[in-house]
Amino acid sequence: MKFGTGIGIVLSMIGIAVGATMEGTNVMVVLNIPAISIVLIGTLGATIAACGLEAHIRLPAIYKKAILPDDLDLPGRVKELVGFAEQARRDGLLALDEAVGSISDPFTRKGIQLVVDGTDPDLVAAVLDAENEAMRKRHAAARNPFMQAGALAPTMGIIGTVFGLVNVMNNLNQPSTLGPLIAAAFLATLMGVGSANIVFLPMANRLKELSEEEMHFREMTLEGILGIQAGDNPRVIEEKLMAFVPPAERVSATGGGDGGGTAEKQAA
Amino acid sequence: MKFGTGIGIVLSMIGIAVGATMEGTNVMVVLNIPAISIVLIGTLGATIAACGLEAHIRLPAIYKKAILPDDLDLPGRVKELVGFAEQARRDGLLALDEAVGSISDPFTRKGIQLVVDGTDPDLVAAVLDAENEAMRKRHAAARNPFMQAGALAPTMGIIGTVFGLVNVMNNLNQPSTLGPLIAAAFLATLMGVGSANIVFLPMANRLKELSEEEMHFREMTLEGILGIQAGDNPRVIEEKLMAFVPPAERVSATGGGDGGGTAEKQAA
Amino acid sequence: MKFGTGIGIVLSMIGIAVGATMEGTNVMVVLNIPAISIVLIGTLGATIAACGLEAHIRLPAIYKKAILPDDLDLPGRVKELVGFAEQARRDGLLALDEAVGSISDPFTRKGIQLVVDGTDPDLVAAVLDAENEAMRKRHAAARNPFMQAGALAPTMGIIGTVFGLVNVMNNLNQPSTLGPLIAAAFLATLMGVGSANIVFLPMANRLKELSEEEMHFREMTLEGILGIQAGDNPRVIEEKLMAFVPPAERVSATGGGDGGGTAEKQAA
Amino acid sequence: MKFGTGIGIVLSMIGIAVGATMEGTNVMVVLNIPAISIVLIGTLGATIAACGLEAHIRLPAIYKKAILPDDLDLPGRVKELVGFAEQARRDGLLALDEAVGSISDPFTRKGIQLVVDGTDPDLVAAVLDAENEAMRKRHAAARNPFMQAGALAPTMGIIGTVFGLVNVMNNLNQPSTLGPLIAAAFLATLMGVGSANIVFLPMANRLKELSEEEMHFREMTLEGILGIQAGDNPRVIEEKLMAFVPPAERVSATGGGDGGGTAEKQAA
Amino acid sequence: MKFGTGIGIVLSMIGIAVGATMEGTNVMVVLNIPAISIVLIGTLGATIAACGLEAHIRLPAIYKKAILPDDLDLPGRVKELVGFAEQARRDGLLALDEAVGSISDPFTRKGIQLVVDGTDPDLVAAVLDAENEAMRKRHAAARNPFMQAGALAPTMGIIGTVFGLVNVMNNLNQPSTLGPLIAAAFLATLMGVGSANIVFLPMANRLKELSEEEMHFREMTLEGILGIQAGDNPRVIEEKLMAFVPPAERVSATGGGDGGGTAEKQAA
Repeated sequence: MKFGTGIGIVLSMIGIAVGATMEGTNVMVVLNIPAISIVLIGTLGATIAACGLEAHIRLPAIYKKAILPDDLDLPGRVKELVGFAEQARRDGLLALDEAVGSISDPFTRKGIQLVVDGTDPDLVAAVLDAENEAMRKRHAAARNPFMQAGALAPTMGIIGTVFGLVNVMNNLNQPSTLGPLIAAAFLATLMGVGSANIVFLPMANRLKELSEEEMHFREMTLEGILGIQAGDNPRVIEEKLMAFVPPAERVSATGGGDGGGTAEKQAA
Repeated sequence: MKFGTGIGIVLSMIGIAVGATMEGTNVMVVLNIPAISIVLIGTLGATIAACGLEAHIRLPAIYKKAILPDDLDLPGRVKELVGFAEQARRDGLLALDEAVGSISDPFTRKGIQLVVDGTDPDLVAAVLDAENEAMRKRHAAARNPFMQAGALAPTMGIIGTVFGLVNVMNNLNQPSTLGPLIAAAFLATLMGVGSANIVFLPMANRLKELSEEEMHFREMTLEGILGIQAGDNPRVIEEKLMAFVPPAERVSATGGGDGGGTAEKQAA
Repeated sequence: MKFGTGIGIVLSMIGIAVGATMEGTNVMVVLNIPAISIVLIGTLGATIAACGLEAHIRLPAIYKKAILPDDLDLPGRVKELVGFAEQARRDGLLALDEAVGSISDPFTRKGIQLVVDGTDPDLVAAVLDAENEAMRKRHAAARNPFMQAGALAPTMGIIGTVFGLVNVMNNLNQPSTLGPLIAAAFLATLMGVGSANIVFLPMANRLKELSEEEMHFREMTLEGILGIQAGDNPRVIEEKLMAFVPPAERVSATGGGDGGGTAEKQAA
Repeated sequence: MKFGTGIGIVLSMIGIAVGATMEGTNVMVVLNIPAISIVLIGTLGATIAACGLEAHIRLPAIYKKAILPDDLDLPGRVKELVGFAEQARRDGLLALDEAVGSISDPFTRKGIQLVVDGTDPDLVAAVLDAENEAMRKRHAAARNPFMQAGALAPTMGIIGTVFGLVNVMNNLNQPSTLGPLIAAAFLATLMGVGSANIVFLPMANRLKELSEEEMHFREMTLEGILGIQAGDNPRVIEEKLMAFVPPAERVSATGGGDGGGTAEKQAA
Repeated sequence: MKFGTGIGIVLSMIGIAVGATMEGTNVMVVLNIPAISIVLIGTLGATIAACGLEAHIRLPAIYKKAILPDDLDLPGRVKELVGFAEQARRDGLLALDEAVGSISDPFTRKGIQLVVDGTDPDLVAAVLDAENEAMRKRHAAARNPFMQAGALAPTMGIIGTVFGLVNVMNNLNQPSTLGPLIAAAFLATLMGVGSANIVFLPMANRLKELSEEEMHFREMTLEGILGIQAGDNPRVIEEKLMAFVPPAERVSATGGGDGGGTAEKQAA
């Protein structure tokens, strides 16, 4: 369900191509070298100027992440954390030391490690908060080239079209060539508006949503780790973490079906 | 009174159709298959790319919710909570245990259940706040496709129109066909601007207002639950909750007509 | 001085009408039934879809409030509150019980009533804050139709004009009718841009400013009420409240002309 | 250095006039009475509707303030406050009573007066904060007409141009008059876009920056006054206040050149 | 890697020039004196009006900073601060007195100096926070001319083009000159849109990102200085500071490879 971005971009292109073909236009005309040079290279240069070279070296990885994002298993994480809470209650916090090595998520592992090391609770919260805040800033920097490109590409298209129209105006005395010249001038607008609205802006929004989902996931994990360290009752921890899970996905991690945490689901 | 969204969309379409017909245009021309393919499928694809597939599977339910929203009965909820407060004062918090099963709203039920279970007040507030914050995020994610569509549809219309004009420019040597071709090119603009401004943007705003109303409703409920747990005087709880109710709807839930809570109403 | 909104709208219309007449256009052409139907009914429908029916039933009262707003007498309110503070200092808080009935402002009356009832200071602040926050939300909801209309009307105008141009393009073979048809098509743009920029957007801004002034007024009142309850020295209360009054309107409420509260005025 | 606003507006006008003259246009055509009536009177009316009459009566004073702003001498104020701190340390807070009368800045005088009167430190901070917050609101209200005019004037220009084009379209049968009529219609766009971008928007931004500078100045002053009242070491006060001064303007007020407060300057 | 801004601007210009040349336009036409006068001088004047003269005197230095920014070595700073923490633990805070002179960064030097002087921890935090806040304001003021120019230049281009079109319309009776005149009018639009989107807006965004990176760097430094003053364990300080470093750059400063601070890197 998460691979919607690739599907959406293809669907949007198909809808436009079908409609344009029915209008009588050959959609292949958009693969116009001058328009591509002006809009795509012009936009790439301007986003490099705006965001630095480093942000652009990471772009292929970011495209891949937007199209094939990681699955964030909220109920699974709740179950994992409640399991640690039960183990810590039964055998003490130090008993989690063995479990640390088997935790696959680096953030959870770092948090549990800090707890096992006996770090002060305020410091655990401060370190993990700083991790989250730094991740939020990295994500914002990573999607900024897409936001910039979404704003810049249409204006690059306008630049291309106006250049074309300047050419047209200087050839007004050859009326037979005007139509194709104006048509060619418009292709830059198509390339600019199309690339921005089908690729750059949707990608930027998708990356923003994925970042918010990951922050939500980490905030839940942080609440759980602090609860484990405080020695809270595992059922109370589950109750609290379940509030982060959408009602439709809520299942009890402790087995009993009578908890308040499942109330909303029963009523839905 | 809440079903205004459907009425508004229909009224807006009628106003435009009547005006356009008086101008001499046949409004049925907007049902143009190429324009619909470019604008509606193009926009759908771009919003799927921007917001993911999952958000689009829930769309029919969200349309229904915007057009036929739940009624939020603020004075009724105040009365219900003040009733619980009176019962808890008279018979103790545990006496609410029987009432829990009969509460129809899952949020209120979860809150009262937590209170009856003797959960720590700070934790009750934290769990219910997390529920509200998670709901706010879910609502924002649910209306995002409408906001994206409102921003994208007009540009899809421009793409359709420019494609049409490219076609026109390549047929400049057949002047008799130009008028109808240009007219057809404009239909994509009409479809894009119209769908955005009559459907997508008003829907997005309506969903935002409904979400804010529900948050307001839940904040009031949370205040009431915390007051019940703290054992506050029912009249004081009513006073506090009445501040959340618009002056015109304020009625006393405890029967006496002398409360400060009704002062604003008497003066209105 | 407060009735500027009506004057402004009329002045703006006169400026435009005079200029257009000098350009040689008959300004009465804007009273074009198709343009009015498309722009005004189309916009009304879309704002109903966006904000619900209820918000529109209150519109006539809100127009009236924007054009003839209440006068907010900051120095008068300071004097009233300082008077209560002096009375409470002299005769005790209960002595204010008689005064409560004669307070014309419901918010002040509710606050003083709560103080006289011996309500806990934190609860007085919480109840009055909740009143203010609820008022702020009501005001925002009340001006939202104007903001929506300001954004939607120009696009409705574009829809009307494009419909007209579609009609023009289908009549290209009758050149003599083109001029008047294009002129008629432009009237929808005029109606849309004009109504938005002369009426809807200025009204929305005016309502926002009036709301902020009322919030400022109420925050000052709240400070005064809390000071009275705390038994603060009336001169200190006056000093604090005077900071909310613009320097040009500051006069001492206690009679002495030597107060620090008037320092800025003396220097101005 | 502060009188840049007047210079900037004149420079911008010269740049445009020179360029337009070189293009072959007589720039005096912009002094077109219909365009002025539509754009300037139309905009004035709409800003009165948006911001009220009172805000417009103060406009001449605000224009003057933007063009000839007060000089804010940060290092001088630091020196003045450190001097008071030294005097208070040496001779006690009451010794400042004589100095109060000679303080030219009303805000500083009010603050020192409150300190000399023995007002509670929290209340001093609350009163001066309220003064600053009220000033911030007054400034925002004062520059709002410029922001509104910057947004409204271009659309008034469009209204004027569309009115002109309606006139053109109704005269299509007299081709020889079309050119001058279209040219005249464009003048309203020039007036609207020009007045907004050369005068209104730059003025609005300038007033915002001047307001932020004054807030910064007052925050520094407030820190100093509270430090004097707390009896802090004058060198420590200077250290703290110097952080508010741009590194290039930092000089020690106590004479010694070894202070940490000058570290950044030495390294620059 | 940091010099991307210069490369980006050049790349963008090349992309546009190649595309325009392929379309058949001589790109040298953009070096049009009237267009340059209207757009660049007009924009410069308006930004001086908006931001004051002083902000423009610093512009050359700011261009240089955007194109050749300082390298911010996060892991190096962590190592430096952890080194001070170890020295302070071993030999006491006063032992840092010798080190102060050799610190090249003025902010770190000022902070360590305050610590060595025995300043109260709250005051150290307050002074350094005030330094950071003042730097943030200076940065915002420094990039504001670029943001203003990015918004103003396209409208100056429109002014130039409309002036040109007014000239065209007054020469409608000489059809042979129309094409070149319209072409010349468009050059102002090209200059306005191009300078804004290739230079001004990317520069403004780049300066914003560099400012955020420097704030991030300083926040990390501040955390470290406060930890040193509090006498925290150097390994705990490293753990906390490492959260500010992107995972890919994390290396242990204390030598041991078993720290939680490197957990995320090991998992990456």
